[in-house]
Amino acid sequence: MAVVIIILKSEVTEDQIQHVIERVEALGMKAHLSRGTYRTIIGVIGDEQKIGAEPLRAIPGVMDVIPVLPPYKLASREAHPQASIVDVGGIKIGGGNLAMIAGPCAVEEPERMMDIAAAVKKAGANIYRGGAYKPRTSPYAFQGSGEEGLKILREAGDAHGMPVVTEVMDPRCVEIVDQYADMIQIGARNMQNFVLLTEVGRTRKPVLLKRGMSATIEDLLMSAEYILSQGNSQVVLCERGVKGFDKVTRNLYDVAAVAVVKGLSHLPIIVDPSHATGRPDLIPPCALAGVAVGADGVHIEVHDCPERAKSDGPQALLPRQYAELVTQIRKLAELFGKTISTIGPEKAA
Amino acid sequence: MAVVIIILKSEVTEDQIQHVIERVEALGMKAHLSRGTYRTIIGVIGDEQKIGAEPLRAIPGVMDVIPVLPPYKLASREAHPQASIVDVGGIKIGGGNLAMIAGPCAVEEPERMMDIAAAVKKAGANIYRGGAYKPRTSPYAFQGSGEEGLKILREAGDAHGMPVVTEVMDPRCVEIVDQYADMIQIGARNMQNFVLLTEVGRTRKPVLLKRGMSATIEDLLMSAEYILSQGNSQVVLCERGVKGFDKVTRNLYDVAAVAVVKGLSHLPIIVDPSHATGRPDLIPPCALAGVAVGADGVHIEVHDCPERAKSDGPQALLPRQYAELVTQIRKLAELFGKTISTIGPEKAA
Amino acid sequence: MAVVIIILKSEVTEDQIQHVIERVEALGMKAHLSRGTYRTIIGVIGDEQKIGAEPLRAIPGVMDVIPVLPPYKLASREAHPQASIVDVGGIKIGGGNLAMIAGPCAVEEPERMMDIAAAVKKAGANIYRGGAYKPRTSPYAFQGSGEEGLKILREAGDAHGMPVVTEVMDPRCVEIVDQYADMIQIGARNMQNFVLLTEVGRTRKPVLLKRGMSATIEDLLMSAEYILSQGNSQVVLCERGVKGFDKVTRNLYDVAAVAVVKGLSHLPIIVDPSHATGRPDLIPPCALAGVAVGADGVHIEVHDCPERAKSDGPQALLPRQYAELVTQIRKLAELFGKTISTIGPEKAA
Amino acid sequence: MAVVIIILKSEVTEDQIQHVIERVEALGMKAHLSRGTYRTIIGVIGDEQKIGAEPLRAIPGVMDVIPVLPPYKLASREAHPQASIVDVGGIKIGGGNLAMIAGPCAVEEPERMMDIAAAVKKAGANIYRGGAYKPRTSPYAFQGSGEEGLKILREAGDAHGMPVVTEVMDPRCVEIVDQYADMIQIGARNMQNFVLLTEVGRTRKPVLLKRGMSATIEDLLMSAEYILSQGNSQVVLCERGVKGFDKVTRNLYDVAAVAVVKGLSHLPIIVDPSHATGRPDLIPPCALAGVAVGADGVHIEVHDCPERAKSDGPQALLPRQYAELVTQIRKLAELFGKTISTIGPEKAA
Repeated sequence: MAVVIIILKSEVTEDQIQHVIERVEALGMKAHLSRGTYRTIIGVIGDEQKIGAEPLRAIPGVMDVIPVLPPYKLASREAHPQASIVDVGGIKIGGGNLAMIAGPCAVEEPERMMDIAAAVKKAGANIYRGGAYKPRTSPYAFQGSGEEGLKILREAGDAHGMPVVTEVMDPRCVEIVDQYADMIQIGARNMQNFVLLTEVGRTRKPVLLKRGMSATIEDLLMSAEYILSQGNSQVVLCERGVKGFDKVTRNLYDVAAVAVVKGLSHLPIIVDPSHATGRPDLIPPCALAGVAVGADGVHIEVHDCPERAKSDGPQALLPRQYAELVTQIRKLAELFGKTISTIGPEKAA
Repeated sequence: MAVVIIILKSEVTEDQIQHVIERVEALGMKAHLSRGTYRTIIGVIGDEQKIGAEPLRAIPGVMDVIPVLPPYKLASREAHPQASIVDVGGIKIGGGNLAMIAGPCAVEEPERMMDIAAAVKKAGANIYRGGAYKPRTSPYAFQGSGEEGLKILREAGDAHGMPVVTEVMDPRCVEIVDQYADMIQIGARNMQNFVLLTEVGRTRKPVLLKRGMSATIEDLLMSAEYILSQGNSQVVLCERGVKGFDKVTRNLYDVAAVAVVKGLSHLPIIVDPSHATGRPDLIPPCALAGVAVGADGVHIEVHDCPERAKSDGPQALLPRQYAELVTQIRKLAELFGKTISTIGPEKAA
Repeated sequence: MAVVIIILKSEVTEDQIQHVIERVEALGMKAHLSRGTYRTIIGVIGDEQKIGAEPLRAIPGVMDVIPVLPPYKLASREAHPQASIVDVGGIKIGGGNLAMIAGPCAVEEPERMMDIAAAVKKAGANIYRGGAYKPRTSPYAFQGSGEEGLKILREAGDAHGMPVVTEVMDPRCVEIVDQYADMIQIGARNMQNFVLLTEVGRTRKPVLLKRGMSATIEDLLMSAEYILSQGNSQVVLCERGVKGFDKVTRNLYDVAAVAVVKGLSHLPIIVDPSHATGRPDLIPPCALAGVAVGADGVHIEVHDCPERAKSDGPQALLPRQYAELVTQIRKLAELFGKTISTIGPEKAA
Repeated sequence: MAVVIIILKSEVTEDQIQHVIERVEALGMKAHLSRGTYRTIIGVIGDEQKIGAEPLRAIPGVMDVIPVLPPYKLASREAHPQASIVDVGGIKIGGGNLAMIAGPCAVEEPERMMDIAAAVKKAGANIYRGGAYKPRTSPYAFQGSGEEGLKILREAGDAHGMPVVTEVMDPRCVEIVDQYADMIQIGARNMQNFVLLTEVGRTRKPVLLKRGMSATIEDLLMSAEYILSQGNSQVVLCERGVKGFDKVTRNLYDVAAVAVVKGLSHLPIIVDPSHATGRPDLIPPCALAGVAVGADGVHIEVHDCPERAKSDGPQALLPRQYAELVTQIRKLAELFGKTISTIGPEKAA
């Protein structure tokens, strides 16, 4: 059920007012007329699908249409007042449980993937990441290793007791990614790829949904709604920077978005200071800021030899830098009564 | 062949300099060292794919890496100094030929689609548009009529002698859209959907590539490069507004982008003031500005009853408003020695 | 008189509703309560100064406060339905009369200023510009030549029959600038320097008010209102680019702003493609776009030797480039039934 | 001393190269030519003032000019490797000492100012704030109480042992503000009011310089350089949000800017989550994020009755909310080995 307020133009005629009401009621929605001394207003209550589909703003005499309830429903706090906890292969995210997602940008050679897995696990990571399908702005850049990469990632995760997350870009690859991964990532450039959102919504795997570079928080929650509306309730959001005007950082890291989402939605939200800043020196302070503002986890690129990384090397932390950071995050988490998730004995067994 | 300049840190050591050169040469690229009194620089020349794949910035001692040739090649003016002309079912776009693309946002009922086609054709449109698959921010909004819509659009175009353009969102639908349409549109939200770009690149249909809301012009040209690199040289770009901070218009209409693209690339570029502004009152002046700055065409939503449109009604012009606008565009085009394209007798026959 | 609508929270209590009404009425404003089945609304009508000063949004139970009339009054179309025409030393701006403002960024040596004046006058300029006080981001850059510069500018303008415009940055310099100039410019960085706006509002000289780099159109009109509210009705607005994310141009040239301002305000508005783009190659097409969208004039930096300019040389046109552009602008103006202003015989005499 | 690299166009001629070198050397700068196989480069080293004043980019044959040293000098880390500590009436800011600046947006009635001072002091504030001169977007809004306000603020600060900070907008008021305040604030809208920066640079009072809404970090440091270059070394920077596209918050809070500034400059930097977010519910989490990212203090608006505040009431915290927040900030500070500053016994005595 959605609610909007139609504000009529000051010079609106009686005929136009009647026309607006007729149009609204013809669509099976309720109209509530309120005449002021200076301005007439019509409240509209009705089915979201209908209101969304109808260009009320185009009816003659209408000045503006103001929504008073958010256009998303399943993602809203109202629908689910308690914070949701998403379980990724035994690692809980949300409700005081922090995800520490780490790993290289792209899946590397098997041995290197094992080494990095060992290093990040030791450092305190609880979910392992790596891209088998890479969105690259250049068609001439490395595009990822495909299914072979999925296997390598899975084996490295299993060998070191970490569930794995990897990105999917092609709706035709959702099935195979679903077979290998514990969590499916939708990248920032695909946040409004509604075909892909619908497809991952049909799986029952947790989804890591990254915010698009020019997406409002409402856009982000609407994209989550796409997934939720297909029956998949396991969505974790991720703030990773929006487009800014200052090229001193790759993107503009929007930590307030975390606090805003916490007010509007029950879904967990983590931060990704690697992609937000694009600079290793800024990752540790920005990760701490993310935890302090209330994020349910931190996603960081870690590589044991950034200059040989297949993708995005310059923004990766070294394992020892990551270990130092996790130590600080752990203390910060304690201060806020939170803990870095670990796999419980039943799962680990 | 790409060229970059590596600027080394002021405190770089001899060992680091040698290490950078070794790394560059080990990759089969040429390094050219230039020692200044205050700063040492290494020029790198090599295969684009290799340079793109290598995180030179992550090598110790490197301060910055500055590209001196653009990362796109097939899309560049250097590669193709003459302006390209794209042929869409007999309508030429570019090189002084203007496309007048018009039609409703979404494909409507067959009769209405016929009526609108007749109206825009009469007004001066030369390509008919309508969405059969709609990217909607809300999963509860009208999602398009699918193949049925493609047929309706095709028939309306044929009946009134206009080639048709329609959007594709799903790589699995490229084949069917290719069967019905004369031009395939990639929407702004999919500008960096590299899977989809690759798929339309494999067809031999003209592609209308809309600029993403936070895409730089280099991003746009790199996305064109994806299509071109698959062997499809028929790409038309479209400026349709970028994300701005002032909500008085839907997006920020970037006409300078048209002039910038003209300098960097041979590809035609048109403007879409409907999506750029989201306000019918601003469409005519902004369309004229687009033609004045050098655009190769104008894409406008036209509907004979905006308040009953299935999608985006409020931003559509009425047919008579569109006709007035085309009259003005025609005069402006003449002033610049351009013409609105028509299908030649051989094609029309 | 201003009007706002207060939307109350869904969980608002009766006591809170009464409290809001009491607060509104205690301030001498009228409150109009409208209870819906799902949402209660209070319309407020009252003196602008009071509404502006009162934090209605902070009253318990209030969800949102929506203005339904613009916060500016003297600058609004409602207050003055006819387009205003501003007279700058005999040159009319607005109402179909185009200003062609041209000259170097900073005032140069007297001889050079005479040469450039002769060149731009011959090319078709009707107002001469040059900065005697320069806002520079670096304290180490050339800061302008002060009163000496004002004299040089004045003499060059007089010698060639052009009124002159120059920027003021310091409220203590308004008086002296007023003595020498025919029009006082407020630069983009000072658009919200309310002290300076108030000071120029107290003169009776035409003011050229440039839009700030992150100013909304409402912000711009509010700044004009500052000047108008002091009794100076001679305000000409100027679009000169807003902050954007793509560094390919200096700023993002917002031509739609011209059309938006035309709808909201009676004040003339011109465009400045020099500062908007920062690139000479983009100035001509962007100037034409500005005239096509409805601007009342064009402000362009012209210098006869850009590489020796004291400031902003790289974005200046050469006199012959400017002459070609004015020829094109003249044709475009004719198409739209406008003319480039000239000083009438009575003034010129 | 500044250093730039001039990159020449690929088609540059020998004559053009010589011309560039001559122009550079004629200006007393050193040119260092470096011919590559594909690209020729000229390094330029010289006096900042000269390089800044010269439009090297406008010389024929020049493709780009890239600065390799920052254009600010006194503000840079290179010039002053140790973190600066600014002393505001006995309260240290920087070097592990946190400023807790709190108070109402505008100076209120004397009694209320005393009450709020008592409340924030008890809560843990160490510097008291309040605006006597208010930058308001509307000429009809409350503009501040002037010198009367300065007195009220001073008395409230003295009565409760807190130094005071207040904004100055008019260069003619710097002297009087200097008489009353312990720290002079330059607001975001005046960050590039170079006249005002120069004027406060001539005092010896600490300056709180707020980042403009569309200012890059380099812009901010250049504005600090204005103040420093006048001999006033007591500058504290303040991140308070930049212009963003999502209206869910007033501005976009850029915490990464704090970490970036720490790398580039020795100056202390604090955060202002009140103006950055404009929403009381977001202030506490965003304040904590600011401290976690490394800020040297937090600036927060506190009012005991936000709905009766003379300005910006809706974004103020209540005293008890502020007290809770300071308790959390104190714990966070301890974790990072920092302390909230207090006036030492010698000063307090």
